[in-house]
Order: sequence, then C-alpha cells, then structure tokens
Amino acid sequence: MIDPATAGTRLMTRCDALAALSADGASKLTRIYLTPEHAQANALVAEWMTAAGMIHRVDALGNVIGRYDGMDPDAPAVLVGSHLDTVRDAGRYDGMLGVVTGIEAVDALNRAGTRLPFPIEVVGFGDEEGVRFGATLIGSRGQAGTLDPDTLGALDRDGISLSEALNTFGLDPARWREAARKPGSLHAYLEVHIEQGPLLESLGLPLGVVSAIAGATRRAYRLAGLAGHSGTVPMAARRDALAGAAEAILAVESVGRDHGVVATGGQLEALPGAVNVIPGAVRFTLDLRAAKDEDRAKAVADLDDRLDALARRRNLMLSMEPLHENAATPCSPRLMEALSRAITGRGLSVHALMSGAGHDAMAFPGLTEVAMLFVRCAGGISHNPLERITAEDAGLGAVVLHDTLLLLAKDVLR
Amino acid sequence: MIDPATAGTRLMTRCDALAALSADGASKLTRIYLTPEHAQANALVAEWMTAAGMIHRVDALGNVIGRYDGMDPDAPAVLVGSHLDTVRDAGRYDGMLGVVTGIEAVDALNRAGTRLPFPIEVVGFGDEEGVRFGATLIGSRGQAGTLDPDTLGALDRDGISLSEALNTFGLDPARWREAARKPGSLHAYLEVHIEQGPLLESLGLPLGVVSAIAGATRRAYRLAGLAGHSGTVPMAARRDALAGAAEAILAVESVGRDHGVVATGGQLEALPGAVNVIPGAVRFTLDLRAAKDEDRAKAVADLDDRLDALARRRNLMLSMEPLHENAATPCSPRLMEALSRAITGRGLSVHALMSGAGHDAMAFPGLTEVAMLFVRCAGGISHNPLERITAEDAGLGAVVLHDTLLLLAKDVLR
Repeated sequence: MIDPATAGTRLMTRCDALAALSADGASKLTRIYLTPEHAQANALVAEWMTAAGMIHRVDALGNVIGRYDGMDPDAPAVLVGSHLDTVRDAGRYDGMLGVVTGIEAVDALNRAGTRLPFPIEVVGFGDEEGVRFGATLIGSRGQAGTLDPDTLGALDRDGISLSEALNTFGLDPARWREAARKPGSLHAYLEVHIEQGPLLESLGLPLGVVSAIAGATRRAYRLAGLAGHSGTVPMAARRDALAGAAEAILAVESVGRDHGVVATGGQLEALPGAVNVIPGAVRFTLDLRAAKDEDRAKAVADLDDRLDALARRRNLMLSMEPLHENAATPCSPRLMEALSRAITGRGLSVHALMSGAGHDAMAFPGLTEVAMLFVRCAGGISHNPLERITAEDAGLGAVVLHDTLLLLAKDVLR
Repeated sequence: MIDPATAGTRLMTRCDALAALSADGASKLTRIYLTPEHAQANALVAEWMTAAGMIHRVDALGNVIGRYDGMDPDAPAVLVGSHLDTVRDAGRYDGMLGVVTGIEAVDALNRAGTRLPFPIEVVGFGDEEGVRFGATLIGSRGQAGTLDPDTLGALDRDGISLSEALNTFGLDPARWREAARKPGSLHAYLEVHIEQGPLLESLGLPLGVVSAIAGATRRAYRLAGLAGHSGTVPMAARRDALAGAAEAILAVESVGRDHGVVATGGQLEALPGAVNVIPGAVRFTLDLRAAKDEDRAKAVADLDDRLDALARRRNLMLSMEPLHENAATPCSPRLMEALSRAITGRGLSVHALMSGAGHDAMAFPGLTEVAMLFVRCAGGISHNPLERITAEDAGLGAVVLHDTLLLLAKDVLR
C-alpha cells in the first residue's frame, strides 16, 4: 500500500531537507559534485535508504546506492536513479525528486513486506549537471561503464582534477572503474524527473511518459558581409550581416516549427556593434533537438539549405563550426507500457512526450532498457530557485513508480 | 586659370603632408582637436594660405582661417571650410581635402590677380569628428555661434576639459565666444568633401552636388519575452525575444527600402546569451537618416507600427529609449545651382545626392546658405586608412569650386 498524500508530503519535506545542503547557505541552492555538501547529501539519503529497508553503499565515483534485495539476490536489478548535484542557484526538485521517489516506492514495498523477483537499486548520482568538471553525467556514465578515462584528468575552476577531488572525497581514484556495472546485471533503468518544460501543465496532467530523450545538434554560424557607414551606404548597396542573421534566426524558428523539432538561436553577436555602422559580421548559435535522429538530420539539412540560399541572395559569406552532437535515446516500449498501465491504473490519462533536456537515463541504453516518468512543474521553469511542483503530483509520481515496479514483477513472474 | 592636373597633384601631396602630422606616428593617422599635431596642421595650412595670397589667423577655438580679400573688404564673405581633425586610425581625405581644395581655388584666383566682389575665407575647423570631447562640430558650431556653453566643461578621456585644452593650446578660454561670426557677415558656406559612400563611384561620376545633409533618428529598442530551456519549451509556447528582434531588424531594413531612407540596426545583444537558453530579452539600435525630416518622421512611425504589431503578435514587451535626434540640413538651391553650372561647364554630368554623414556645413544654416560638393571615393570607404581618392577627381573638385566662386561673383555683380 502506498498513499499518495503521505508520500507527497514526505517527498516535499525530503527535497527541502536536501535543499538545505548548499555551498551558498540556506537561501541559495548550489551543490556541486564531490564537495562537502555532496557528502552530506549522500549521508542523508543513506539514512532514508536504511529506513526504507535498503543496504547502502557509496561507489567508486561517489554515487550513493541503496539496495533492496529481491526474491533472487542474483537476478538482474532494476535501477531507479537520478542525481543529487545541482546547477548554481538551482531549483530543489531537478534530480533530487527522482532519488527520493525511488526511496519512497521501495519504502512502500518494504512496509508491505513485498519482495519482487528482482532486486531494486536506488541511485543518487553524484554528477549529472557537469557544473564542476565540464563533462556531464559523470556519475551515471561511470555506472554505465562509458565514462571517458580522460575525464579523470579534467580540472575544475580551481585547477583540481577529478582524480584529486575523488581522493579528497575519501575515494581511491585508481579504483574508479569499479563503479561500472557488469553487462547483464541490470533488468531495467527507471527515472522520475520533473518535466522542466510547460507541456504537462498546459495539458492539465500531473504525469507524463517520456518517449525519448532528444538528440541535439549545436553549432555556431558566422555570416560575413561588409561593414559600412550607416548614413552613406544606400540600402541597395549593403551587405548587412545582421539583416542576414535576422533572416537566419527566423529560419531557425520556422525549421523548428516545420519539422516538429525544437530549434533555438541562443547567442547572437553583431560586429563591430556600433549604432552608426552597418554590421560586417555576425556570429550566432543553433541548438536543435529532436526525439528521432532522422528528424533532426532532416531539419538541420533544411536549415542549411535555407541559410545557404539567404547568404547567396544577400552576398554574404556563411561558415559553420560544429559545437556538439548527441544521438537521441529512445525509451523502451516495454517499460513505457508498464508506466502507462500504472498511470491509467490510477485513473489518469497517459501522455507521451519527448524530453528536450538531458538526463542520467541517457547513459544506460548500452546496458539495459530505460524509461522515464515526468512530473509536472510550474511554468516549465527549472535551473532556477523558482522551480515548483506540488506534493500531490510528487505523491502520484511515487505511486506510479511503485505500481510500475509491481507490474514489471508480474511480467517477470508470468 | 586653374589646371585640374596640376591642382590634383598638389592636393594629393598636401593631404599626404597633413597625414604625416599624427599622434600615432607615420603609419597611422590620428589627429585630435587641440593637440600638438593640431597646432602643426594649423601652421602648415597657414603656410599654404600665405602662399595663396591669404592673411591667416587662428580663432578663439583653434580654427585656422585664411582670408582672401574681395573688391569690397566689408562685403559678407564666402566661407569655404572643412575640418583638420580626424578619427583614430583615419583616412587622409575626410575633412582635409575640403581645406586644401579651398586654398587651391583661392590660389588660382590669386595667381590670376582676380578679386571677387566678396572676400573668401578658407577655414580649417579644429573639431568636427568629436573624438576628444564627445560633442561633434565644436569648431564649426563655435564659428556659427551655436556651441553649447556646457561643452567648455566637457572632459576628454584624461579628464582634461575643453577650457583647459584651449589654454594649453595657447588660447584664452574666456574668449571662446569671439570665434562666433556675426549675423550678416557671411554670403555663403561651401564645403568640398569626399562622399564617404559608394554612389558616385557606382554612377561613374567624379563629383556630386549634395542636396541635403540627412537628419537622423537614433534609438535603442528592447524586446522582452521569456527565457527558457532550449530543449523543453515547445516552439508554440515560446516568447523568444531574439526571434522577435530578428523580425524587427528585417522591419528596419524594409522600412529603409520602402521609404527611400537609410535605416540600420547596428547593435544587437541577446540575453542571457547561452547556446541552450531561449533569449528572454534583446536590445538593438536603430539609426535612420533621411534628407527630408517629414520622410524620416513617416519612416520612423511606420517602423514603430511594425514593431508594435510584431511585439503584440509574439507576446513580447517592447520599449524604446531615444538616443539622438537631429533635423536635416537642406542645401541652398541657389548654391546647388551654381555648383551644377560649374560642373556642366566642365563637361561633366550633374548628380544630386543626400549626405548621410554629418559635416561642418550642418552648423551654418542659421547664419547663411550652405552647399556641398562631394568627391568620389573608392568603395565608399572612409574612417579607415583605406580611404582613397584620385588626383584627377581632387583636381576636378578644385576646378569646380573655383568656377563656382566665379559664378557666385557674377551673380552678385549682375
């Protein structure tokens, strides 16, 4: 038995307790990987794990893990994870909600004396945001066995390497590979997370099933024309790089709309940048994300065609620098189905949506199937102290996670 | 008699000689108001004035003046002026060409023993560019009697006031008002200047008659929307300030075209300016110039309508800060007619064009009629060491100025 109201209240209290563990004092939440606040968060989460009937440990990369044994201790485990690190001046639910929800679901099983055919491991990953060492998903990639060894040498802004930081945290950096889980050791990866977008709110739904974590293409473009005097060069004789870039930004927007993807021009700089000078060069960035890699490729190709055409028409030079590229992570139809059944089982409508943001779940597809449950958040706001969810929605998330674990158990036993 | 080839050669030599008087050494021309280089330029110009039969003096604001008396020493004078100061890393013709061309025309009259019914005063203004004290046209406004007294307290980047700088230059700052010419003391103001635009070059014409010096409206606009995560906010839910600003920049461009004015978005800044964040606010500038103030007002009103409409459609907040506003300076039909007759008299076609850039001539309409003769320059490039003209075009400019003075004299005598 799991009561959504009781669970919701406790989840909110626990997110508040974690929010107090901050490098920036009580008023501002900043908790970075392998800091004293991280150790405090691990310790607090470990207490809750113990109270929920789990055995806890901290792995070689500082991730805290609570294990709830199943009927067969050697059966592949269901991992329920999310992260305990934050951006600077963060919200209190991004990451943490998934960890405490995992504990809450296990607690309900434990109180009912229910053992499932598989062990459950709840994980609080130490680094997802990548604030300290630039590389994101250090914790989850470490467990998935896909962490780039070069990351151990990455430096934080004080010149401290990941290796050194592990050592200061009380871990042996030489043993970092021991964090990796063995192939075949996992049955599934589940993650509960706030949506960080406005869709569920606009649909009036507390929960949503993630269909895929978007792949992303990030690029910097440069348009070069000819700077000139704003008073003396006739309109028809101009090679105005900013007017060209303005068309390009609108092309980014309409490519996003036309292809059903999200496309953003986030940075734009006009040079020389004087009131009375026609801009001679403009640099701007693209961030284009899609649930399907082929949709992303088509959208980017379409955009390139449009940019080439406008550059030709305006007699501008176009150049491009790739910044980042990652493939989409499709969610498992089997796990999505289990989440959906759990949702409808509680009388709610199911809505599947893409995750435009990255998550720990992205690290695991090489090792096991993944799925995610999104919880509605206010105004889609996150990475911001204004991040808000309701206790009701959080409680429903714990209930659906709990029910999903039971449904997966039934499938195994069938 | 004035020979264009001889005049052209000497004009180029003299511009080269002035270009050597620089604060930044021989390789880079920077000559700022009331500096030692300014004093050197005044002295060199004074030598040339003397050689051309003129009496020279330096007025209370550091402008150098050469006077060539007419038949009646008390008749209102024709002023032929331009400036001797430069921007930093300047071209060598912007300003200086007009001063040496004035001397050249007088020299031809002097060699021919010709006295006109009016005196001619050639002026090398000390400040037009406004590099040192922020305020432009200090020299010409001083002579026109329209210099704002507050300018005397304006500070340069070393904290030196205009008053102090006049004192260091050997002038009595208390007597600055003596630079002002008396109402009724001028018959006309003529200025020869490089075009600083590409129009004459594209028409294949060495010279052009300025119809008006453009009026200008400069503003900063701000569009505010809502910053958001580039991956999680669907295209339809966005309030993207940069996409709105992109439409605004294209509106600036099309208003320029539609109204036959020049309109430029020179600066644009997107905030917060991260690759993965939808811009929440954008500031951009407008510089709109027109030969007729009513055209400028209509164009600005049209632009405001378009910006209001797009802000409403996109649910963005639009605000505006005025930066600068100056009325157009129409040129005198009588003087334009004299310049045109002089041009056709030398077998050339007449083309009238707006000056998009500001000039010393803008200071004088309260005191006398003004007109300007533009000399073709390469690629419209100026405020740049790459500023180029030909000796042939410069020589034709001197010839037309000379002939114009004779035509004005005939009109007076008629």
